[in-house]
Amino acid sequence: MRTSDETEERRGAADVTEESIVSFAREFDPQPFHVDKEAAADGPFGGIIASGWHTCALMMRMYADHYLSRVASLGGPGVDELRWPAPVRPGDRLTVRATVEKARPSRSKPGRGLVHTRVEVFNQGGDVVLSAVVVNFLRMRSAG
Amino acid sequence: MRTSDETEERRGAADVTEESIVSFAREFDPQPFHVDKEAAADGPFGGIIASGWHTCALMMRMYADHYLSRVASLGGPGVDELRWPAPVRPGDRLTVRATVEKARPSRSKPGRGLVHTRVEVFNQGGDVVLSAVVVNFLRMRSAG
Repeated sequence: MRTSDETEERRGAADVTEESIVSFAREFDPQPFHVDKEAAADGPFGGIIASGWHTCALMMRMYADHYLSRVASLGGPGVDELRWPAPVRPGDRLTVRATVEKARPSRSKPGRGLVHTRVEVFNQGGDVVLSAVVVNFLRMRSAG
Repeated sequence: MRTSDETEERRGAADVTEESIVSFAREFDPQPFHVDKEAAADGPFGGIIASGWHTCALMMRMYADHYLSRVASLGGPGVDELRWPAPVRPGDRLTVRATVEKARPSRSKPGRGLVHTRVEVFNQGGDVVLSAVVVNFLRMRSAG
């Protein structure tokens, strides 16, 4: 587990290209404003934007590389309050910040801790493009 | 918007292969139990399982094809109570069920409705492998 100092840093850096937005969305979220440049220009966002699930996947990669890689992750039961407050557009560069909100030993499984982490993804302008509370099971060291 | 009758059906069908699990996870969620068969066998799930974000992406594809395609989607602000109650394993065949929980006109934007949909993904054995409340903005027809 990390100190609050460590969590204040923004880490990662995922560069989002139009090609990657369209390729992800063709496979998983083929709505016009994700896959069709012309339709998207006339659509609700005035241009192509990334599927929110693509942003989640990019968040996961940065979170796995920069936070989970240092601990013993045992998976997670879920995510709360997942929000996409601003769209992700081609050319954006994303970074991630993780802040531990709660941590406690599991009640049912010894040696396991349950950690709630507020994860935020920012674009290069400092706008939050994703915010969520991710719950992870982590292996605990024995005390002492 | 659909009637409750229509929402009771399970739709879609996404076949999950080991190759697709590993390929998604190498790009977005390279934890050992998603990408490394040998490590996964000794890991917390006794074998490779899909990244929860891969399951989300597969859910989105089925949701877009079978529900959103019939309405005028304007994107969505977020998702609540995202849970992965059971792992998705190679060979699983997934289906989706969507149930509208709440629908109301937007308070700030005329012509726009806000719909809360409970989305569940099942495996071939009937286990729920994903559950979430997805919020969508939809274009409303004018009354009358």
